[in-house]
Amino acid sequence: MKIVIAPDSFKGSLTSQQAAATMQRAIQSASPVFNTVTKPMADGGEGTLDALMAATDGEKKFLNCTGPLGEERTSWYATLKNETAVIEVATIAGLTLVPEEKRNPDLTTSFGIGEAIKDAIDEGFTEILVGLGGSSTNDGGLGMLQALGLKAFDGKGRELPAKGASILKVTELDFSQLDERLKNVEIKVACDVDNPLTGPRGASAVYGPQKGATEQQVEHYDAAMERYGKLTEAEIGKNHMEVGGAGAAGGLGFALLTIGAELVSGAKLIAEAIGLEESLADADLVFTGEGQSDEQTLYGKAPGYVAELARKHGLPIVLVSGSIGGNVEELNRLFAGCFSIITGPMRLEDCITHAEQLLYDATTQIIHLIETTSRLEI
Amino acid sequence: MKIVIAPDSFKGSLTSQQAAATMQRAIQSASPVFNTVTKPMADGGEGTLDALMAATDGEKKFLNCTGPLGEERTSWYATLKNETAVIEVATIAGLTLVPEEKRNPDLTTSFGIGEAIKDAIDEGFTEILVGLGGSSTNDGGLGMLQALGLKAFDGKGRELPAKGASILKVTELDFSQLDERLKNVEIKVACDVDNPLTGPRGASAVYGPQKGATEQQVEHYDAAMERYGKLTEAEIGKNHMEVGGAGAAGGLGFALLTIGAELVSGAKLIAEAIGLEESLADADLVFTGEGQSDEQTLYGKAPGYVAELARKHGLPIVLVSGSIGGNVEELNRLFAGCFSIITGPMRLEDCITHAEQLLYDATTQIIHLIETTSRLEI
Repeated sequence: MKIVIAPDSFKGSLTSQQAAATMQRAIQSASPVFNTVTKPMADGGEGTLDALMAATDGEKKFLNCTGPLGEERTSWYATLKNETAVIEVATIAGLTLVPEEKRNPDLTTSFGIGEAIKDAIDEGFTEILVGLGGSSTNDGGLGMLQALGLKAFDGKGRELPAKGASILKVTELDFSQLDERLKNVEIKVACDVDNPLTGPRGASAVYGPQKGATEQQVEHYDAAMERYGKLTEAEIGKNHMEVGGAGAAGGLGFALLTIGAELVSGAKLIAEAIGLEESLADADLVFTGEGQSDEQTLYGKAPGYVAELARKHGLPIVLVSGSIGGNVEELNRLFAGCFSIITGPMRLEDCITHAEQLLYDATTQIIHLIETTSRLEI
Repeated sequence: MKIVIAPDSFKGSLTSQQAAATMQRAIQSASPVFNTVTKPMADGGEGTLDALMAATDGEKKFLNCTGPLGEERTSWYATLKNETAVIEVATIAGLTLVPEEKRNPDLTTSFGIGEAIKDAIDEGFTEILVGLGGSSTNDGGLGMLQALGLKAFDGKGRELPAKGASILKVTELDFSQLDERLKNVEIKVACDVDNPLTGPRGASAVYGPQKGATEQQVEHYDAAMERYGKLTEAEIGKNHMEVGGAGAAGGLGFALLTIGAELVSGAKLIAEAIGLEESLADADLVFTGEGQSDEQTLYGKAPGYVAELARKHGLPIVLVSGSIGGNVEELNRLFAGCFSIITGPMRLEDCITHAEQLLYDATTQIIHLIETTSRLEI
C-alpha cells in the first residue's frame, strides 16, 4: 500500500521536510506493509525553497546582495536543473532576518530581491520563480524595482535611496532605465494571499503591523502606496493595484506585476515543481498537515491543494496539524479526518518544543487506527 | 455495523452518560450505517451510581444520614431490580460535599456509609455494592463501623464520637454489638486502587493530602491507623492491613474487609452489572474514553477493562480521552488508536468548559476516518 506524505511546514517548529520525515518514520514503524513517499510541500511562503530543492535536487546559488535593513549580506537563491531560479523573499528580505527592535517599514527594503533577479538574469536563467511569504518589507516593491533600474524622485527632484521610507516621499518614477532583459524572462510569483495593494485589505493595513508598523505608519504607508500605485499605473499604462496578491509581501506583488510577472497559487506551483500529482497516480492514501488548520486551509494553503489533488485521484487524505480550528465541517468535505498533534492541555511553547514527537505520536495513532479498522465492513 | 460506546466519565466535565451520548451523537451524525449502543462505564469511583442506574433502570432510595462533616443530610443510594443496593462513597461522604476550607481528616467521617448499609439491610437487601471513589475521609472506616454498632474507646475508657480525629485516640475496640445481620449480607466493594492501609503507599500518605491533611497529620494518621489496624486484627483475628485496596477511601476499604466484604475490580463489577460483555458479542467496533489516559489506564481503569473485553471478542477499540500521556506504546497494545479531544494549545479550564464539543468533534473525525479508509486493502 502506497502512502504519499505531503505536509506543509509546521510554522515555528518543523520544516515541511522534517514534518514529512517524521510522519514517514511513524508510518514505517507502524507496519512494513506501508510503502511511503515524502513530498514536502510549501505554498510560496517560508520553506518554499527548501521544499523545491529537496524535491528537485536543486542547488544553491550564493550572491552578495542587500539585506532587509540595507546591509550587505551573503544570501542565496535556488537553481533547479539549470533552468529555473527560485528566489524566496523570506531568505533575502525576510522578517526573521530583522531583529525585533528594528522591525519598522521605514527601514526595510526589498532591494535585495531585485538584485537576486538581476543576478539570475546575469546567469542566463529565463524562468524565475519568486516565493513571496515571510517578508519584512512594506515598500511596495519600490526597492526591488530600484535594483532593476527604476529611478524614484521626491518632490524636489532628488533621487530617493532604497529604503522603506522612500515610498512616503516619491512623486516621480522613471522606468526608462529598467533592465531591458526582463522582457525575455518569465517570472512566476508563488502567492498564497489575495490582498489588493491598498485599502482596508491592503498590504499596509493587513500585514503592516506584524512588520512593526505603528497605527500611524499604517495610515501613512497606505496613503503613500496609493499615490505610488497611481504613479506607476500612469507610467506603465496598466492597472494592477486591485489584483489579488498585489498587496502580498508589502506590495512586492504589485511591483512584480508591474514588471510582467504572473501571480500563481504557490501550492499549485510547488506541487507541479515537485511532481506531486504524478506520485498520487498509484497511491492509496495521502497524509498532509501544517501548523494551524482551519477552513482557510482549503483556500490556497498547501494541505488544501494536496487535498484537491487527492480528491481528483479518489484518494482518502488525512490532515495532521498542530491545531485544528474554525469550521471543521468544511475541512471534512475534503479530508477523511482532521487531527491535532496535541495530546492534552498544553501551552503553545510546549507544543512547538515537542512538535516532532507529538507529530510522530499522532501519525502513529492514525495509521494504527487505519490499519486496525481497515478490515471492518462498513 | 454495530458500535458499542463505553466511556468512563471525563472527570470534572462529563459524566460517563454524557460522554457516551456525545460520542453516540457524533457517530450517528457521521453515517446512518452505524448502529450504536451506549454502555456508560465507571470503575467504582464517582459516577458509578449513575452508570449503574442508567444501565439497569435503577431507582434512588433516599435516606437521612450523616454527611462527611457530621451534619445530617438527605442522601441516597441506588437500588437495582429490588435485589442490590449500591452505595457510593462520593454521594454520601464525598470530597465534593466538603467546602475546600473544611477539608481536614480531623473533621470528616465515614459514619453515613454505615448508616446507608444499615438502611439497605433494613430494606431487606442482601447484596450491597459499595463504590469507594471520591471520599473525603481518612478515618480508617471507623465511622462506618461505629454506625454499624462498633464501640470505640480512648485510653480513659471514654467512648469516642464518630469523627475523623477519633482514630488518633482509639485504644480499645468492641465489636460485640456489631449489627448481626451483616453476616447474611454479601458486600462487594468496587475498588480501583491497590494501596495497603498504612505506610508510604498507605491511605494517609497517598490520599491524605488531597483531603486536606497537613504533612504532620499524614504522619499522625498513618501511625494511628497502624495502631487501629492492629487493634482490629487482634479483635477479629484476621489480617487485612496489607490487602490491596485496604487503603482505599481513607482506609474504608480496610473497614469493609473487616466486616466480610470482598474487594473487586470496580470496572469489572460495573461491566457485569451493565451487561457490557453481552453487548460486545455481536459488535464490530468499540469506543471508550476518560478524562486522562496513560499506561495506568490499563490497570483497573474502566477503559482498560473495556479494552480487555474488546480484545477477548476480537474487536478493535478506540480510546478518545481528554488527554493522552505516559507510555502510549503500552496503550497501543490494546487500543487501535488513542486520541485526545484537544485540537490545539489550550488551557485545562478551556478543555473542561468545551469538553462536550471537543469530544463530539474528535469522535466525528475518528469515525469519518474509519469509514473513509475502511475500503483500503492493507
